[in-house]
Amino acid sequence: MNVTLSATLAANEDIERRRRAGERVLHLAFGEAGLPVHPALLDRLVAAADRNGYGPVAGAMELREAAAGYWTRRGLVTEPDQVVCAPGSKPLLYGLQLAIGGDIVLPKPSWVSYAAQADLVGAEPIMVPTPPGEGGAPDPDLVAAAVLRARAQGRTVRSVLVTLPDNPTGRLASPRTMGRLVQVARELDLMIISDEIYRDLVHDLATPFLSPADLAPERTVITTGLSKSLALGGWRIGVARLPHGARGLLDKVLAIASEIWSAPAAPVQQAAAYAFTEPVELVERVARSRRLHAVVANAVHAAFVEAGASVPAPQGGFYLYPDLGHLGVGGSAEITKLLIEDHGIAVLPGHAFGDDPSAARVRVATSLLYGESQEERMTALTSSDPLSLPWISANLAHLSRGLHDLSTRQQAAGRTPRRTMAATPAHG
Amino acid sequence: MNVTLSATLAANEDIERRRRAGERVLHLAFGEAGLPVHPALLDRLVAAADRNGYGPVAGAMELREAAAGYWTRRGLVTEPDQVVCAPGSKPLLYGLQLAIGGDIVLPKPSWVSYAAQADLVGAEPIMVPTPPGEGGAPDPDLVAAAVLRARAQGRTVRSVLVTLPDNPTGRLASPRTMGRLVQVARELDLMIISDEIYRDLVHDLATPFLSPADLAPERTVITTGLSKSLALGGWRIGVARLPHGARGLLDKVLAIASEIWSAPAAPVQQAAAYAFTEPVELVERVARSRRLHAVVANAVHAAFVEAGASVPAPQGGFYLYPDLGHLGVGGSAEITKLLIEDHGIAVLPGHAFGDDPSAARVRVATSLLYGESQEERMTALTSSDPLSLPWISANLAHLSRGLHDLSTRQQAAGRTPRRTMAATPAHG
Repeated sequence: MNVTLSATLAANEDIERRRRAGERVLHLAFGEAGLPVHPALLDRLVAAADRNGYGPVAGAMELREAAAGYWTRRGLVTEPDQVVCAPGSKPLLYGLQLAIGGDIVLPKPSWVSYAAQADLVGAEPIMVPTPPGEGGAPDPDLVAAAVLRARAQGRTVRSVLVTLPDNPTGRLASPRTMGRLVQVARELDLMIISDEIYRDLVHDLATPFLSPADLAPERTVITTGLSKSLALGGWRIGVARLPHGARGLLDKVLAIASEIWSAPAAPVQQAAAYAFTEPVELVERVARSRRLHAVVANAVHAAFVEAGASVPAPQGGFYLYPDLGHLGVGGSAEITKLLIEDHGIAVLPGHAFGDDPSAARVRVATSLLYGESQEERMTALTSSDPLSLPWISANLAHLSRGLHDLSTRQQAAGRTPRRTMAATPAHG
Repeated sequence: MNVTLSATLAANEDIERRRRAGERVLHLAFGEAGLPVHPALLDRLVAAADRNGYGPVAGAMELREAAAGYWTRRGLVTEPDQVVCAPGSKPLLYGLQLAIGGDIVLPKPSWVSYAAQADLVGAEPIMVPTPPGEGGAPDPDLVAAAVLRARAQGRTVRSVLVTLPDNPTGRLASPRTMGRLVQVARELDLMIISDEIYRDLVHDLATPFLSPADLAPERTVITTGLSKSLALGGWRIGVARLPHGARGLLDKVLAIASEIWSAPAAPVQQAAAYAFTEPVELVERVARSRRLHAVVANAVHAAFVEAGASVPAPQGGFYLYPDLGHLGVGGSAEITKLLIEDHGIAVLPGHAFGDDPSAARVRVATSLLYGESQEERMTALTSSDPLSLPWISANLAHLSRGLHDLSTRQQAAGRTPRRTMAATPAHG
């Protein structure tokens, strides 16, 4: 088993065990949207429940048309035959790595599954640090150097991946970085895989969002899904947008899809087709979710800043990537262990995301703070002031207290506070 | 794209094109159960529609417990922690090949995706003919020779696959063959993957069914699903039963599942959990389906026999594998082309199943004969005499007329009728 999955599973099991033992554990270790299904989507699923036939491998035409419309409304004119659907964007990301072949350049840090998938297809990921303060895209200049070095060693490098906005850092790569990265990808003839599953959860709609597909549509594949914006993780639905006319790649991806997963569940496809048309009630739902994620992520950010952590402000999704190196506790494994064992705060260590194990960076997911029941979560979603809800404020108080106690204890123990390296500075 | 997927997709596209052009085409090219969803399953899906969280990678506990019960009732005591669920048995079959590694022995002929999956994981399938008159299991003596030969060439061979009962032949490997194969697997230290997705559709319940897991539970993985027995192909649900205590293999399969497909759609898992408890109304539904499949497959068998084809009688599922070599038309591509172009009968060529392209063998799927509408299919399912239903008898008449015309024309053209080889003799 790869280390990253172990980390996630171990965290989940550990949390369950502790909760059963009566401990209060703040679950900040899991990237689930943590919100209920919108009733309009339930209706569509129910209406399509009797769809039991094998459909087209690329996905039902209604779904491909709707997804094409989704991208077209975002300035990327898309035909349905550029769209491939799957049970989640994860199978698509795997299938793309398999179809494109060769080694892949990944941001360091990046979501656990990219590197694990590379491993499964027999490729070796090239981990390239993000520019200081950014996340989700490898530093373009370092990419060029790393790819040329790998090629000089006889390796085949065919693609680079970005996550816009990013998990684990919650940051959105700047248009400048994206422009440079696309230029490098052109020079080195790399395909770009752009995971945009959090795109509709960029907190501030005024933040400029630039997809590599806007700049280099001929070499960019976008993946997205409804697990995050509409909280449909358990329904398993993802879509990919391939370059126009990329028949060879399309055929390869469809062959892979056909032999591994066939297609998403047919009733789910119909609900997803409705969602991608972006009817007003779902647009409003996404807007509410975005607001809730932003408010809570920012409150958690403030708690880490207060505790002296070095942590860029979140720009999208429901993640933060603080560096707690100032506490002098050790690397990501040590700080993760200390947080859960002594303070009931469950996070994932940065090394699970390909980061340097000696850095005390952790990924904090904020979306499981919204409540334990559907009712609490629904209340959080519709509240004009979610931070004032008793269960959310209690969660935030638990976090602040834990971080404060940890700081105090470390100071009392005489550990030398040290500032961390420049990779994730405190400025926004 | 691999040849097998091409064949299936091309057949489907060709049929659609011809039908749009007003041609009457008998669709015998697609292995879909062709029956409606039972209302009890619709109810369960609807009741679980609001389940949107990511569940455990192995599948929801209710589903694993129900699947364990399903196998335990069939004489294979099973614990829930031996069960892994997935969106279809296809991902499981792929994941098993990837987890076990090495080359795999496949029956010749066998379902299109096994060899295609081997190709995707970078393995080379070793195609071994089935014993004369059988299907779904490679001839054990030939397996031993082929594996020893491959190993002598430095290849790593780690597994052998069986399909019980079989697609494409509709045959069930005999207990004698299974006994010998298990012995060979033990001697050569091969894992056995037993695809039993058609198990509950063995036509005659008196036919002895022997799973390799009955004989060698320590080295057998069974896969199954609800796509065939309960016609849930479009819902995407499959389950695997791993050997008791096979922790290493389980961890590998779970790691693969986690990185590629995560889990089946959560609402589907709940409906499947209900199905695997085998409540009386679903047992009755499977029994009715079994009867319908048997009656129609046998009528199609009679039509091929009447036309002089060499074709073993179907024993399970909804497939036949006739050899039309006596017509002197050529190999599987030629006979397939002639059947669709001149007689409006769509089948798949045997070479898509790894068979010798020079043999005039084709796979005939009989389940799309039940009707064009849900109403017709439901009527077929509940009829005491489905062959007398006008649409089914018209379909069978189309088939008989086509085969008769083809024979007459070939005789008139003076082609020398020739008997085919011994691999699939006419006896039952």
